[in-house]
Amino acid sequence: MTYCVGMALDRGLVFMSDTRTNAGLDNISTFRKMHVWEEPGDRVLVLINAGNLATTQAVVSILEERTKAPEDREPSLMGAPSMFQAARMVADVLREVIDEHAQTGQRADSTFNATMILGGQIKGGPPRLFLIYPEGNFIEAGGDTPFFQIGEMKYGRPILVRAYDPTLSFEAAMKLLVVSFDSTIKANLTVGAPFDYLFYETDSYKVGHIGRIKQDDPYFKTISQGWSNALKEALDSLPDFES
Amino acid sequence: MTYCVGMALDRGLVFMSDTRTNAGLDNISTFRKMHVWEEPGDRVLVLINAGNLATTQAVVSILEERTKAPEDREPSLMGAPSMFQAARMVADVLREVIDEHAQTGQRADSTFNATMILGGQIKGGPPRLFLIYPEGNFIEAGGDTPFFQIGEMKYGRPILVRAYDPTLSFEAAMKLLVVSFDSTIKANLTVGAPFDYLFYETDSYKVGHIGRIKQDDPYFKTISQGWSNALKEALDSLPDFES
Repeated sequence: MTYCVGMALDRGLVFMSDTRTNAGLDNISTFRKMHVWEEPGDRVLVLINAGNLATTQAVVSILEERTKAPEDREPSLMGAPSMFQAARMVADVLREVIDEHAQTGQRADSTFNATMILGGQIKGGPPRLFLIYPEGNFIEAGGDTPFFQIGEMKYGRPILVRAYDPTLSFEAAMKLLVVSFDSTIKANLTVGAPFDYLFYETDSYKVGHIGRIKQDDPYFKTISQGWSNALKEALDSLPDFES
Repeated sequence: MTYCVGMALDRGLVFMSDTRTNAGLDNISTFRKMHVWEEPGDRVLVLINAGNLATTQAVVSILEERTKAPEDREPSLMGAPSMFQAARMVADVLREVIDEHAQTGQRADSTFNATMILGGQIKGGPPRLFLIYPEGNFIEAGGDTPFFQIGEMKYGRPILVRAYDPTLSFEAAMKLLVVSFDSTIKANLTVGAPFDYLFYETDSYKVGHIGRIKQDDPYFKTISQGWSNALKEALDSLPDFES
């Protein structure tokens, strides 16, 4: 399993993804699920993904044109004229990779499917955020649905729904995401730290801040422990039921 | 879908169940999912269930011996010598009902499966709480896992995990459950009010308090609105990320 979130704020985009992959509960590994393409001054594209790891790695490899000799590579995403075109490219590659495996008649215990979130900005357009389905179609985030979750999204959703605000600072949005991820890893063993994160500031055309939060990160610990207490206090502040 | 919780506290048991059933998203109804058998001074048994409505209704009908003429009925649960025997009865009936439908070769869009929580106390033993699987086996709640959720359990789980405490009063446990149910109905349309609840006080051998909370119940509204604000304040009380 996986848990990834892409979020649109007034000031830009925030992404967070976990790194746990599993083939059965007794076979877990750590893999990066966040991929970034950057041409400072022109574009930043961020792709986070959930689903079959072979599928998502194949998609990224094809997007980076690793089928060609290193000197001939010119990742196609770097040439996309708009975010919409970039989303279409990713979606097409994703569908092709899934089709290819399905048509061999092979079967996996899980399916070959994957779901992806693509966000970023290309000069000439606004920042945009897409959710790309394994069928090769996609939807875009808007004012009513300003964030997308993929993978094990249920445990961490209530806090996002209640506390999301488009005016959040990057630092406050990170706090919200850390709480959401912490709620998820407490309930599902197949989602796990470290977590990769990235901020993109509108019209900056460069990666704002990128990093990784480990399980023993002091900030992560502060939030994880502090949130338990804060939740209890929040509950205490409400009136008990009168029977 | 459904959301039900059975919870063991130091002072007794608390149950809450929603009432929404659906056959597709365009066909929703309201049905009671909580069934109570009481013999004051001797026993109280509470059964809440999730899954195929025809299955769960058939199980309850058989347990109440509705196959017999009204004057001959003597619900078998009323004769069970212990909670463990009662759980075995329910589990056997549940498995038989599911088998019966499966063996006709009929298929439903969903399966005929159901999962149940049985709790209560029979004179001579302590209060006990069981989770009964469609396969006809069951597990019992203990100190490490003092509550069971069935149905759409993920959205409402984080708050239960963080705020549950065995020393909670019934009134505080109700508040916790209302928050958990409210988080769930905000995210899944197939879980809905009204909610049935029941308190059972250890060694009372009678139903303590039983009732129903409707969507427009003033207490429900207070909690639902208050919780959003309390959560935001809880989040504000934690330090922002420092990038």
